[in-house]
Amino acid sequence: MKNVSIALLGCGTVGKGVVDLLAMNGPLIEEQLDTKINIKRVLIRDLNKYEQMEDLPDSIQFTTDFNDIIDDDEIEIVVEVMGSADFAKDCIEQCFLRGKSVISANKDLIADYGIPLLKLSQQHNVDFQFEASVAGGIPIVRPMYSSLNSNRIEEIIGIMNGTTNFILSNMTAHGSSYEDVLKEAQEKGYAEADPTNDVSGYDAARKIAILATLGFHSAVTFNDVHVEGIENIAKEDIEHATEMGYVIKLLAIARQDEDGISLNVHPSFIRKGHPLANVDGAYNAVCVRGNCVGDVMFYGQGAGSLPTASAVVSDVMNVILHRNLQMTGKRGYVWHEAKLKPQADIASPYYIRMIVNNAPGVLAAVSKVLAENNISIRSLIQKDETAEIAEIVILIDKSAAGLVQASLQKIEELSCVRKIANAIRVIEV
Amino acid sequence: MKNVSIALLGCGTVGKGVVDLLAMNGPLIEEQLDTKINIKRVLIRDLNKYEQMEDLPDSIQFTTDFNDIIDDDEIEIVVEVMGSADFAKDCIEQCFLRGKSVISANKDLIADYGIPLLKLSQQHNVDFQFEASVAGGIPIVRPMYSSLNSNRIEEIIGIMNGTTNFILSNMTAHGSSYEDVLKEAQEKGYAEADPTNDVSGYDAARKIAILATLGFHSAVTFNDVHVEGIENIAKEDIEHATEMGYVIKLLAIARQDEDGISLNVHPSFIRKGHPLANVDGAYNAVCVRGNCVGDVMFYGQGAGSLPTASAVVSDVMNVILHRNLQMTGKRGYVWHEAKLKPQADIASPYYIRMIVNNAPGVLAAVSKVLAENNISIRSLIQKDETAEIAEIVILIDKSAAGLVQASLQKIEELSCVRKIANAIRVIEV
Repeated sequence: MKNVSIALLGCGTVGKGVVDLLAMNGPLIEEQLDTKINIKRVLIRDLNKYEQMEDLPDSIQFTTDFNDIIDDDEIEIVVEVMGSADFAKDCIEQCFLRGKSVISANKDLIADYGIPLLKLSQQHNVDFQFEASVAGGIPIVRPMYSSLNSNRIEEIIGIMNGTTNFILSNMTAHGSSYEDVLKEAQEKGYAEADPTNDVSGYDAARKIAILATLGFHSAVTFNDVHVEGIENIAKEDIEHATEMGYVIKLLAIARQDEDGISLNVHPSFIRKGHPLANVDGAYNAVCVRGNCVGDVMFYGQGAGSLPTASAVVSDVMNVILHRNLQMTGKRGYVWHEAKLKPQADIASPYYIRMIVNNAPGVLAAVSKVLAENNISIRSLIQKDETAEIAEIVILIDKSAAGLVQASLQKIEELSCVRKIANAIRVIEV
Repeated sequence: MKNVSIALLGCGTVGKGVVDLLAMNGPLIEEQLDTKINIKRVLIRDLNKYEQMEDLPDSIQFTTDFNDIIDDDEIEIVVEVMGSADFAKDCIEQCFLRGKSVISANKDLIADYGIPLLKLSQQHNVDFQFEASVAGGIPIVRPMYSSLNSNRIEEIIGIMNGTTNFILSNMTAHGSSYEDVLKEAQEKGYAEADPTNDVSGYDAARKIAILATLGFHSAVTFNDVHVEGIENIAKEDIEHATEMGYVIKLLAIARQDEDGISLNVHPSFIRKGHPLANVDGAYNAVCVRGNCVGDVMFYGQGAGSLPTASAVVSDVMNVILHRNLQMTGKRGYVWHEAKLKPQADIASPYYIRMIVNNAPGVLAAVSKVLAENNISIRSLIQKDETAEIAEIVILIDKSAAGLVQASLQKIEELSCVRKIANAIRVIEV
């Protein structure tokens, strides 16, 4: 049996998961590869903390100095599970320069620098893999480039953030407010003390940027994604969605047609009965539409120590296989410049909720603005809230985002309209 | 750009799909591989038929003689999409002997001879791939051995036969009888004139044998699968399932624990809300449980010309990649002897429906038999059908199949019991 030494950068939730998984499944993995995997060194911040941790093999050498790893020629493969972007990037680049292949679970890094890093890895004939950067344990990165690659990918739609899915699922199940469920999620550890990265959609945006890069063979990054979070979703929006036969989900959506690529993360009405509508709680799901395969969906746990480690170690196995077959760094990838569609042109039906004066003529004024902008009304409900104010809920037919924004601005300027409470896209899949 | 010549054995639904897909997506595929794919020869049964077909590139040479293909040294890759088992096996073996890699979509063949063929391919240093043999376009074969391989796979549960899923979905949706829906399915072309292979569960059994081989690293074949079909599912069973919060699906189930492997195909009660319960019509889904990744599900179209061709061509791309990197035939696979669990030991809860005399003492007699066999009743409904007969529906707790069969035989021998109408396993996932 061959031997390979690897190092971990970081030993937090995912890093510890990798150590645990290799302890649990080592013999099965090593038999498949005919290679023994030795975790030789682990980079950590605080030696005291890890010396007190249990269940770590004695053979692992912990260090706070990255040089101990980069200078160790026996280490051929480095697993980056730190999470921070700048230091991780620097470490990974140094690994490439020294001929070490890298596995990373770092979506922040890959969403911004995935292509430059892949190019650098190829220049130095090493592997760079990152299955765990999207949707935790769900196999989606490798299937995208090695199973669905016979297709022109037209659409990728995913629920790829567990925190927001937990919040929206709970708001729907219990009729609770956003604030109450966020607080509960924070108490249970499902949401960070500063939840911005999740609730504002940035986390999902990073993941869709990575998938779109691979699926569309296009150089897109996090900055190309138009992002809206779930902070503005009210109990009332959830209630209306339920009444109308929809569920509200934070969707990450990448589309490609002859006019270009669109990348969006936003809360969305999705019809009950659609496979994505049933993805609850901490689960993730990604639907991919190929021009030949049609719709395929991948579903599973999008986070967690062992599920994420499952993806990391499958990359380690892949890299070891390449090493043993002398094909390290030899797989080519193809990218083009991304042609992005103007955000204002992206059309969909919308749900619009507004608070208006409870007075005659309001409906006429609102619908006049829509008619002037050629926006067609699919359905409309008006409910009197008090003697003074009423709520209007409108579903409009597929309309361009720019046109909808301009119309809503004009409607908000009407003296009889108090505010546009929300405008949420309806996803027709 | 490099060049590779391939041949197709067969040009039916899937073969034509491969031709069409390469016509549609050729440039995208060739760019990824830096290799031009030339379909040089196609083996068919009747030259007249294909000369009349439209949309076939002029460059393809059709032949009815397999020797034209096997003797053509320019052809490096052969795509077997005929479907028949014996002739296909012979052709594939000859390809291996002559150094040609093979892609096959032939589940009948692979469920019986997958491991011997893989071994033969390795002896001759060629590739043998068969993604399309399970669940059409859904990527599951390659993800099983190259993404989920860091896990000990504990369970594979799938809806992998479109015909039976169409029949059961329609019986549920419209309250129709099995016979009526089967007839409708035959008229619409969803079921064959002789539907045995589908409705008896043989097709699903072949697919689960292939997945279990890969997932469990165990040499299992079609003959190791215990199979029950859907022919005995009555309207009444569907109605009871619906009332009790379940859906009936034909599930293919492979499980592995320290006691061994079990392989089953049978109709199953599955709770509404489970992701598999929502897989309707012609869609397929496969749930895989790994000891680290937890549950992951793969969902999509399980058949059809272009979806199946998507899987075939992704294999072709993989084989070309291996060829270009000089690693053809070099990937190793590991198998052990399969230790199969006795079928009688496999335990699950059951739904049992029986027709009895409408007379005092029946319930006491039936429940006495169950009690004597230590089978615990979870719920029981008795409905009078007429003055003479009644229907009893029992849900029993998890019990071994052997014990259930023995008990049901004793119950059927009771003079007050007219017949055991059905006994269907309840799947707790």
